Amino acid sequence: MKEVEELWREVRDLSLGNSGRVERLECPPNPVEFLRDFVTPNKPCIISNAISHWPALSSWPHHAYLSQTLSAATISLHLTPTGAADALAPLHSSLCFASAHVQHVPFPEALSLISNSEPHKLVAYAQQQNDCFRSEYSSLAADCDPHLGWATEAIGSEPEAVNLWIGNQHSQTSFHKDHYENLYAVVTGEKHFILLPPTDVHRLYIRQYPAATYTYSSDTGEFDLELERPTRHVPWCSVDPYPSVETVDDEMAKFPLYFNGPRPFECTVKAGEVLYLPSMWFHHVRQGADDGGLTIAVNYWYDMQFDVKYAYFNFLQSIQYRSTPSPMLKDNLAEEIDSGPDEYES
Amino acid sequence: MKEVEELWREVRDLSLGNSGRVERLECPPNPVEFLRDFVTPNKPCIISNAISHWPALSSWPHHAYLSQTLSAATISLHLTPTGAADALAPLHSSLCFASAHVQHVPFPEALSLISNSEPHKLVAYAQQQNDCFRSEYSSLAADCDPHLGWATEAIGSEPEAVNLWIGNQHSQTSFHKDHYENLYAVVTGEKHFILLPPTDVHRLYIRQYPAATYTYSSDTGEFDLELERPTRHVPWCSVDPYPSVETVDDEMAKFPLYFNGPRPFECTVKAGEVLYLPSMWFHHVRQGADDGGLTIAVNYWYDMQFDVKYAYFNFLQSIQYRSTPSPMLKDNLAEEIDSGPDEYES
Repeated sequence: MKEVEELWREVRDLSLGNSGRVERLECPPNPVEFLRDFVTPNKPCIISNAISHWPALSSWPHHAYLSQTLSAATISLHLTPTGAADALAPLHSSLCFASAHVQHVPFPEALSLISNSEPHKLVAYAQQQNDCFRSEYSSLAADCDPHLGWATEAIGSEPEAVNLWIGNQHSQTSFHKDHYENLYAVVTGEKHFILLPPTDVHRLYIRQYPAATYTYSSDTGEFDLELERPTRHVPWCSVDPYPSVETVDDEMAKFPLYFNGPRPFECTVKAGEVLYLPSMWFHHVRQGADDGGLTIAVNYWYDMQFDVKYAYFNFLQSIQYRSTPSPMLKDNLAEEIDSGPDEYES
Repeated sequence: MKEVEELWREVRDLSLGNSGRVERLECPPNPVEFLRDFVTPNKPCIISNAISHWPALSSWPHHAYLSQTLSAATISLHLTPTGAADALAPLHSSLCFASAHVQHVPFPEALSLISNSEPHKLVAYAQQQNDCFRSEYSSLAADCDPHLGWATEAIGSEPEAVNLWIGNQHSQTSFHKDHYENLYAVVTGEKHFILLPPTDVHRLYIRQYPAATYTYSSDTGEFDLELERPTRHVPWCSVDPYPSVETVDDEMAKFPLYFNGPRPFECTVKAGEVLYLPSMWFHHVRQGADDGGLTIAVNYWYDMQFDVKYAYFNFLQSIQYRSTPSPMLKDNLAEEIDSGPDEYES
């Protein structure tokens, strides 16, 4: 459908660039610059020297510091067999949307489970997204800023939620979008993001998947994955950007708009850096651990404006993608994009 | 086409409101507020007390002051038989896009021609849009501000053009859009705007019309209207929001998306007030004269950002509107919208 493909191209030509690189700033923008150059055009950037003064940068890489400071805390730990929570998983020869087993554990035990994560067996990830930094982790509050002043002034209100993420290289987050302006500060380790602008929505083949949840038995050390009853469907992105050698041909044939379309934006956010991840951008996240085996980040969710950009996005999503012969696309499969409401927002 | 109609509705529900009223501010916003609350969501507002300190407010209503200050100036005066310059006009039993006869005249003579304008005979309007305030009218510079500080700081650069408009109730401006962020300050008299957001583009039935130009003979007092040679086509809005009693039924039948769609935004900008007219909004302007028979305004054109909103607009315009049965629309005529490039920008 040449009109949609032209939109993918035009937003890159006009504003985002075609290199797939994310702009870097050497220091935080002032509120007017942040609004004008990034929030208004819905354009990501990586900001250095915005959190250099945080005590967290030096203290959080030490397990002993964390365990001691959080010795009395009970936190929500997400357990999966694969490291992929809130992601598609095979079930009954089909795919479901699988959520982690969430267990409330004393922090020192959680840190041990994260550190001893074993892929294909048990991967633990502290990634509760309910403003957990200001509740479960409140004893770490003094180690970083409660909000980012320039962003708060630009957006006009304090963050709606501040979340802490403690994991390692075994966890990843599948493609999804959030209805927030997101400022993502990496404290230790690094995060690898693949980003696609909202205008590329058809390239992710959002479809309805039945919701399922992992249950972990500490007795057997085994996971069970069961569909929710009554059945609930979740619209989710179908694309895995890192297919295995065995499945790559099949995945590329199933999702040609992703694999043959314009290059996604990719970036690595290192310890001490902040990513501005604009509202409604699709993102996939992998991570690299620090010397102590951890990746820790704090993210600030600020309210987004539901304005003309959001209305245009909904209009775009409501337009069924009809493939047309195009030199860019290798096949002409007609794809129907689900345009139902987003039931799941995280 | 229900997806397009849903877009018209959603942008009003989310951001613009459904009343057709334009928000009013009692004083100028600060740069962050202006960006966040108006430029980013592409939302108009009327601002009071932004130009109260301008000497122009008290001096320009006086013909003697203007004639004296501009006694040595030669200005570009637009002459038409109807007061409608840059508008559709009948020609050879069809419609053309008619531009005014532009004549360079000493200002005192221009002011006399404006004041003595007679509809259906000769209407004069000083409305040159080439940064004329900073060139032809430079001797008035001290009477108002060279730019609006809060807007300049928000947008990050000074105005690309500042224009002066001197006319009266006999002149009007047909529906069109500009590729600028526009701040429109009324000094004397008043302006009546009808505004439609860019998302309503299909409602204006933009079509290609052959360009023509009026020629005025001061000897005969007659106008001649002739097509440009070689032929040049201009994409222009087909809708006249104020059809005459004789043509109203016909016009409503031809343009149902305009006449039966959501209520347009309407506002009157009075002397001393400033309208923020966001980039790409369609606007139709009529005016009311002051006691001395004049309407005078200064407008500031600031560069707009050609970003995702602009790309979305082009995508929307590229989608052919196919009428579907709708309770809102009285007929089902299939309408084709021209999606060619805008050759004419003013």
